[in-house]
Amino acid sequence: MAKQELQFWFEFASTYSYLSAMRVQEVADKAGVSVSWHPFWLGPIFKSQGWDSSPFNLFPVKGQYMWRDMARICKARGLPLVHPDPFPQNGILAARTALLALRDPAGPEFCRAVYAAEFGEGKTISDPDLIRALLERCGLSPALVDEAGTEPAKAALKDKVAKAMELGIFGAPSFVAGDELFWGDDRLEQAIAHAAGV
Amino acid sequence: MAKQELQFWFEFASTYSYLSAMRVQEVADKAGVSVSWHPFWLGPIFKSQGWDSSPFNLFPVKGQYMWRDMARICKARGLPLVHPDPFPQNGILAARTALLALRDPAGPEFCRAVYAAEFGEGKTISDPDLIRALLERCGLSPALVDEAGTEPAKAALKDKVAKAMELGIFGAPSFVAGDELFWGDDRLEQAIAHAAGV
Repeated sequence: MAKQELQFWFEFASTYSYLSAMRVQEVADKAGVSVSWHPFWLGPIFKSQGWDSSPFNLFPVKGQYMWRDMARICKARGLPLVHPDPFPQNGILAARTALLALRDPAGPEFCRAVYAAEFGEGKTISDPDLIRALLERCGLSPALVDEAGTEPAKAALKDKVAKAMELGIFGAPSFVAGDELFWGDDRLEQAIAHAAGV
Repeated sequence: MAKQELQFWFEFASTYSYLSAMRVQEVADKAGVSVSWHPFWLGPIFKSQGWDSSPFNLFPVKGQYMWRDMARICKARGLPLVHPDPFPQNGILAARTALLALRDPAGPEFCRAVYAAEFGEGKTISDPDLIRALLERCGLSPALVDEAGTEPAKAALKDKVAKAMELGIFGAPSFVAGDELFWGDDRLEQAIAHAAGV
């Protein structure tokens, strides 16, 4: 059976997307599976469920648990973890820029840099200057930040959200391999195995 | 470091609790960790979050995913899976009865029998005759069903719900080991490792 591509769908504001972003390439490489990166935006999807913020804010007991769960997992994986303020961060600029950056092979590196700044250092990812600096660090043009403000770049993110909804995506991270959808960093291994035809 | 007891908190209506109920004893035994079984009722906890049904019904896209996720996992584990009708089932009688049954060493076997009837055979677990038959099959007195209707039995389940909320439990299954709370069948291994002091 031919190996299928793994689609990695992520939202820059999402804690569990951070976990997957930092390991998806390595795990997929080991299995010989190729990965495509799909930044999207959960806002409209949450709104369609009647939520106007992160469920981790709307349901504080769940939110408190999420941070403890993240702390345990980050410790086990040797990842830093800072609570960004505010949480969730507005990830729209990062997502629009990432869609442009991903035309270049350095795109995934830029996505990881955004997550590392946000959850590793507590930086504000809606800040254009930060995004410009991260682009430069990855050898990408800081002018992508300006391009991210154009109508085509806005439309590209809207299209991603529409496609995510079409795929039945309701949270992040999500993985798609063939006809199968997997939700959550906990399902990465299962998604990879499916993509690899194991 | 002394091994800690693993508390297994479950709701009879919960699909993912089914997954854990069928394996928690085996996984814990292998790690040399003792398990205590804590049936509770999610209704009042969901209500405190503004939900009047299962989130899998309130958010249908998530519900559709959950059944696909369950189907994949049950297939991998060799567990049968039937969608009970209606879903979620009313698990109050089963929970009240289980609290009484768990005074006996056959209590966990009764809990597994309830899950197997519900998710393996699609039976209606609010049916007192079914619960009586399951008790008998486990060598327990069918009269526990009548005792489950008494005020002390009702109070015992209310106490469990209050205790669950005190522990920060917001979903099922949940695991408690020492001061740490773990949510979801996906966290069973992590909870066991924590209880074992690994």
